[in-house]
Amino acid sequence: MANKLSFAEVNAKMSFVPHWSRTGDLIERTFVFPDFIASMRFVNQMAIEAERTQHHPDILVKYNKVTLGYSTHDAGGLTVKDFDGAAAADAACAI
Amino acid sequence: MANKLSFAEVNAKMSFVPHWSRTGDLIERTFVFPDFIASMRFVNQMAIEAERTQHHPDILVKYNKVTLGYSTHDAGGLTVKDFDGAAAADAACAI
Repeated sequence: MANKLSFAEVNAKMSFVPHWSRTGDLIERTFVFPDFIASMRFVNQMAIEAERTQHHPDILVKYNKVTLGYSTHDAGGLTVKDFDGAAAADAACAI
Repeated sequence: MANKLSFAEVNAKMSFVPHWSRTGDLIERTFVFPDFIASMRFVNQMAIEAERTQHHPDILVKYNKVTLGYSTHDAGGLTVKDFDGAAAADAACAI
């Protein structure tokens, strides 16, 4: 199991995902796409990644906007898995 | 364009979708599935329905739980399209 990151470790990791914001034990980013179909394409890409890594973000789809939220509930905070997920999402949408 | 339903019409429609709750101009239901893959199967089924009818719910996926929210923003309230969407979702998950 991934260990909960310290405050300093989280701060260091945040600098690598500048489009993400943190609220408590959650990091979030809203991705904007041309339309709903493009949103769903991204969602399915992230669903496959989530199953591959067995780490599942919360996913909110509002037509052409997709918000992903990562947290590691088992660890009671943010772990490296959350930042790996965020980086994978950034790569999938090519920023 | 679908017309906004009256208060009495909304109340009548609500009786046909007893698993849904209303908050202002939004109707919502949370569907629970065995796992994330089952959630995504349902989400994709609803995405196809949304494109077919050109009426897109907000979709929130939290692992094995999917919350759908319908409202007709263009009409400034609830319309028959929202209740058609809700009924289609109920049918898709076989209640």
